[in-house]
Amino acid sequence: MKRLKLGMVGGGQGAFIGGVHRMAAALDGQWDFVAGALSSNPERAKASGEELGLAGERIYTSYEEMAKAEAARPDGIDAVAIVTPNHMHAGPAIAFLNAGIHVICDKPLASTMEEAEAMAKAVRDSGKLFILTHNYSGYPLMRQAREMVARGDLGKIRVVQVEYPQDWLTEAVSNKQADWRTDPQRSGAGGCVGDIGTHAFHLASYVTGLQTESLSADVSTFVTGRQVDDNIHVLLRFSGGARGMLWASQVAPGHENGLRLRIYGEKASLEWAQAEPNQMHYAVFGHPVQRLTRGGAGATAAASRVTRIPAGHPEGYLEAFATLYREAASLIRHADHGVPLPDGVETPGLEDGLNGMKFIAACLASSAKDAAWIAF
Amino acid sequence: MKRLKLGMVGGGQGAFIGGVHRMAAALDGQWDFVAGALSSNPERAKASGEELGLAGERIYTSYEEMAKAEAARPDGIDAVAIVTPNHMHAGPAIAFLNAGIHVICDKPLASTMEEAEAMAKAVRDSGKLFILTHNYSGYPLMRQAREMVARGDLGKIRVVQVEYPQDWLTEAVSNKQADWRTDPQRSGAGGCVGDIGTHAFHLASYVTGLQTESLSADVSTFVTGRQVDDNIHVLLRFSGGARGMLWASQVAPGHENGLRLRIYGEKASLEWAQAEPNQMHYAVFGHPVQRLTRGGAGATAAASRVTRIPAGHPEGYLEAFATLYREAASLIRHADHGVPLPDGVETPGLEDGLNGMKFIAACLASSAKDAAWIAF
Amino acid sequence: MKRLKLGMVGGGQGAFIGGVHRMAAALDGQWDFVAGALSSNPERAKASGEELGLAGERIYTSYEEMAKAEAARPDGIDAVAIVTPNHMHAGPAIAFLNAGIHVICDKPLASTMEEAEAMAKAVRDSGKLFILTHNYSGYPLMRQAREMVARGDLGKIRVVQVEYPQDWLTEAVSNKQADWRTDPQRSGAGGCVGDIGTHAFHLASYVTGLQTESLSADVSTFVTGRQVDDNIHVLLRFSGGARGMLWASQVAPGHENGLRLRIYGEKASLEWAQAEPNQMHYAVFGHPVQRLTRGGAGATAAASRVTRIPAGHPEGYLEAFATLYREAASLIRHADHGVPLPDGVETPGLEDGLNGMKFIAACLASSAKDAAWIAF
Amino acid sequence: MKRLKLGMVGGGQGAFIGGVHRMAAALDGQWDFVAGALSSNPERAKASGEELGLAGERIYTSYEEMAKAEAARPDGIDAVAIVTPNHMHAGPAIAFLNAGIHVICDKPLASTMEEAEAMAKAVRDSGKLFILTHNYSGYPLMRQAREMVARGDLGKIRVVQVEYPQDWLTEAVSNKQADWRTDPQRSGAGGCVGDIGTHAFHLASYVTGLQTESLSADVSTFVTGRQVDDNIHVLLRFSGGARGMLWASQVAPGHENGLRLRIYGEKASLEWAQAEPNQMHYAVFGHPVQRLTRGGAGATAAASRVTRIPAGHPEGYLEAFATLYREAASLIRHADHGVPLPDGVETPGLEDGLNGMKFIAACLASSAKDAAWIAF
Repeated sequence: MKRLKLGMVGGGQGAFIGGVHRMAAALDGQWDFVAGALSSNPERAKASGEELGLAGERIYTSYEEMAKAEAARPDGIDAVAIVTPNHMHAGPAIAFLNAGIHVICDKPLASTMEEAEAMAKAVRDSGKLFILTHNYSGYPLMRQAREMVARGDLGKIRVVQVEYPQDWLTEAVSNKQADWRTDPQRSGAGGCVGDIGTHAFHLASYVTGLQTESLSADVSTFVTGRQVDDNIHVLLRFSGGARGMLWASQVAPGHENGLRLRIYGEKASLEWAQAEPNQMHYAVFGHPVQRLTRGGAGATAAASRVTRIPAGHPEGYLEAFATLYREAASLIRHADHGVPLPDGVETPGLEDGLNGMKFIAACLASSAKDAAWIAF
Repeated sequence: MKRLKLGMVGGGQGAFIGGVHRMAAALDGQWDFVAGALSSNPERAKASGEELGLAGERIYTSYEEMAKAEAARPDGIDAVAIVTPNHMHAGPAIAFLNAGIHVICDKPLASTMEEAEAMAKAVRDSGKLFILTHNYSGYPLMRQAREMVARGDLGKIRVVQVEYPQDWLTEAVSNKQADWRTDPQRSGAGGCVGDIGTHAFHLASYVTGLQTESLSADVSTFVTGRQVDDNIHVLLRFSGGARGMLWASQVAPGHENGLRLRIYGEKASLEWAQAEPNQMHYAVFGHPVQRLTRGGAGATAAASRVTRIPAGHPEGYLEAFATLYREAASLIRHADHGVPLPDGVETPGLEDGLNGMKFIAACLASSAKDAAWIAF
Repeated sequence: MKRLKLGMVGGGQGAFIGGVHRMAAALDGQWDFVAGALSSNPERAKASGEELGLAGERIYTSYEEMAKAEAARPDGIDAVAIVTPNHMHAGPAIAFLNAGIHVICDKPLASTMEEAEAMAKAVRDSGKLFILTHNYSGYPLMRQAREMVARGDLGKIRVVQVEYPQDWLTEAVSNKQADWRTDPQRSGAGGCVGDIGTHAFHLASYVTGLQTESLSADVSTFVTGRQVDDNIHVLLRFSGGARGMLWASQVAPGHENGLRLRIYGEKASLEWAQAEPNQMHYAVFGHPVQRLTRGGAGATAAASRVTRIPAGHPEGYLEAFATLYREAASLIRHADHGVPLPDGVETPGLEDGLNGMKFIAACLASSAKDAAWIAF
Repeated sequence: MKRLKLGMVGGGQGAFIGGVHRMAAALDGQWDFVAGALSSNPERAKASGEELGLAGERIYTSYEEMAKAEAARPDGIDAVAIVTPNHMHAGPAIAFLNAGIHVICDKPLASTMEEAEAMAKAVRDSGKLFILTHNYSGYPLMRQAREMVARGDLGKIRVVQVEYPQDWLTEAVSNKQADWRTDPQRSGAGGCVGDIGTHAFHLASYVTGLQTESLSADVSTFVTGRQVDDNIHVLLRFSGGARGMLWASQVAPGHENGLRLRIYGEKASLEWAQAEPNQMHYAVFGHPVQRLTRGGAGATAAASRVTRIPAGHPEGYLEAFATLYREAASLIRHADHGVPLPDGVETPGLEDGLNGMKFIAACLASSAKDAAWIAF
């Protein structure tokens, strides 16, 4: 089976998430990274491309040029990864979709709802694949949790507690990562709510399968002078009657990337945290709590399919991210070459992205109304 | 130094918390348990008193009689512990206070605000001591946390996350403990909110020293037919600008008594959970997280004063509870015999009880208004 | 049921373990502490006794005098607790046994094998009870572990890993606790091996029920000038073919009282650590690991009998110690008053003490022969 | 910078470690996998090569043929990965070394000391690089631990406790992985001692930098009929006076790959376990224990150099393994193309392999003499 060809917009020298996408694409040997518009700065674009071994003619200085050129090449890219700040998602995404090239895009979907809707239109018009890298849904145990909830292991869900605390913005700080994330021109109106709140919200929705009916949010900015929020407290009401809480923070000393999900049903609960992603606690009411492990006893089909190595040898963040790239490869091979799709292949996509945008908007709207309930 | 004499109302055969009070009083050798109206059922009162070694004439069948008789004895009790269901706190408390006897009372203060106010009046009129057993404030590391916050180790507090999940009411159940706690006639209007929500609220208030300005609560009853709430989700706003979340649940499979407190300030955070009460994580922003232990390096004066055994030998729930009894003994010796009060002696009392009642009322009022903010 | 009367030898001001014994005796309301020879220094004996509320005539300055006087009183003590340094166990124990008074003695049994044998003779000759406070066997989950092993939940035992690291003697230090423990005249020839190695060895033996056949020990003294060992590494061979390792250390930075026991059988394993004494991990081969909790699902009769409060409210070191005092009370009431003995009552005793002395001797003998195997 | 070309011997369909090597080589984009003698079975070799996208002419059915052909190609492989069972290391390794091709070889070095010595001769004669995949030394925190020990953060080392328990061979079992590992013809005389004992021994040696002076081993086979050991208990004596214990087991229910290393020095200790590889506990005597995280505060240069993603996003087993491939690429580029070697690049190699063989031999020899000390 031939490798697929990947291009990238953004991700030049000094970037964080671009390198993650490249490692994730590389891990399973399904992708070759062959082209990029890695920076809007031509010199940095060139230096970055050379450092990464791209052929000179496939180092582009604008995404428009790249979309056109790659679409025209017989060996053009199969998909492009968009790893720019939020306000630079829509332009490239629409250009590549319109050029007939599948898109793998970082989250949140865009910096404004208008951009998001334009992207949605482009996806629908083009018929191309659109994959949004809500990467935590790639963890094997999150796949397993979703399967366990769906098949009723927990009974009807009552309570969902999800949180994503970080500490890196505890103080005012200026660096490449912090600057755009705290600049509403580039990140959109949401700060913490968009950067990590959407991850927490997506993961809870993904695993439980619950639809959010309404939310009430108390959104705060603790660091003086910061233009966007850095802490959110959200109450959630789900269809079917479940209730939940979501906390995301960038000012919580001691937390590096403390994503944690807990789900309580009529019969049982699940608890998982990214800090120890290879285990999940499963508590059936009236029985001892069980520690489920990735690849260990009780592993479900959905988890086993995306597991690479034996239980006890930890997989991590890059493996989960890589699973999205492996799934993307399967989806593209199916769409473009008719290769049968293995059971269970899935990635977050446009709908998840639109839901994330609604989440950001609803949190900000609720908070502006003193935490009034906003229908979702 | 002579032992003090303790009486008890409630706590007969089959009770849980009465035995806890007796063990807590016994541990440090400061109290003798000498009298009781242990049950409203005369036969059970007698059997219980005999089993516990009370002299026959000090086994009472009514608290009124007991208050009168003990007040008249030259060797009468120094204090009475009231360990009945909530609706039976006010009557005995007022009777003993009026008889000139100090009161140690279980929480929440009462089953209605009216009872609470009557108790408050009796405390003020009598000039007697009133101690409320919010026992978690007796843990040495909670004393230490309070001291660390007060002296500025965390900087100004921004976020408070507190939770108290249990699972014992996940299903409809009938037993002595469950029955009165889910009966609004005996527990008051609040179920989970009163039984454990008040504990969580008290602990957060005690440790942070923050005043609650307002709260917004989403109160749920998940088990069909239950007459009181079994899960509460609360947003908190504190004076000074800190924000918080409180979750209490009796329907969370896998949690036995999962009280957990996390406090985040401008400089550092603290995290503590009752499940491992002898350690607390202290994270100074920009430094590795430290594990503070009861009695270990960094122990503060407030913690060391209430620590009994060396670090690494775990103390638990009974020791924390016993600390309240030891503090009570110091307070009584000071009040009644002029013995100097050691630095730092403190227990929860009337104000904490009234705040707890306000917490219950505010949660229920907020929830009735679709989680509107209620000023505190 | 009347309380029993306890006396104490040792445990005056500045002592550690005497206070533990008193709290342990007090917790369950079965004992009154009424007499003591609390110090060999008459002034300290008097001051200590008064501080503890002893009647003046029952504050003794010698244990011989105390044994005689208490034996002669109609209200004399039912048992004496001996909480002196090791070299001062034999004298008091023999004196009280000969006076017809039951003995509760700290471990190790004595400072020399000769003393131990004299004590054994006195126990046998007197017919009195002799209880050795290997207190870790009082933890409910250790009772449960013993029961689970005995009924075959683990299958035939193959491997036993036990360790007890501490750090308090990492550097040369002088204080009341350290001085006698590192003085062979008072502690006996063993330092670490006697003080905590015997605890680890006892607990492993108690829970597994295995007989030690032979051991090989590498005994070290790391701190310059220390006269006794401060670290032991021991290989164990048990009858039936199980093998084990024991590590005890007083020079292991980061460990306060890190007692940990792991037992592996043909079918399953158990893991427990004193730092979190209310949980135990039970791993049945081929199934997810289960977290058993004190009082939680799966609690056995042996554990439930010695559990005081609900699951999730932690019990600790003092409660486990107190269980030995409660068991002692039951044994004495049975022996002296014919009260039926509840099923399952048990405490460590003379045989455990003699085994501990054999363990010390065998470790030192093995190490002297370059870790040769010593038959047990 | 051009990618290097990797070939592989072994690792065909059904294999475990071959896939690990391929993912590890792929992750950082330094290697292309281009050739293989993936199976001694020609049909499986062909099917495996095609599945993995190898060009037809570079799918070989014998390693001899592959070594010759690849050495002759202008675009021949830069290195070969040998991922066969132990008894099939020496033949391929010597063939490729003699053909002038660098070798990356799985551990242990060989199945017999004779093979090991022949390999050593071939390495020395050829002057080619020989890299042994003791992959745990690739974990960033193990690099950091080595650096911390070397610079004296722990003081002089006193005690080393290392263990590697697994449970997968608790019962008699037959499958591809188990069969060769329990067959002395293929694994060599050691079972557990060679498969995981060598890993534990290597890691302890690597991090502490200590030379083993002698060891005493109690080697067991618990499963009836098994031809090799499945549990080892080893006492270690290091030059300079440090003492240690090593436990490795394949019959320990509840352990998946429970590699754990603890090091105690005169001033401080470190504790690390593979199950949570992104954290390490650092205890300075007299101070609270600190949790060091990969990439977090206190990260050393040696750790940061091999860290890919921010603290709090877990890296795992594959990342650590990939670090060895990245280091190998740097070493090869330096050796073959004169590219300057970055500071700190290192991999386990021939000496580690020979030490591992000595460890196996010493354990078996000691056990045969009833755990006598064997000089190392």
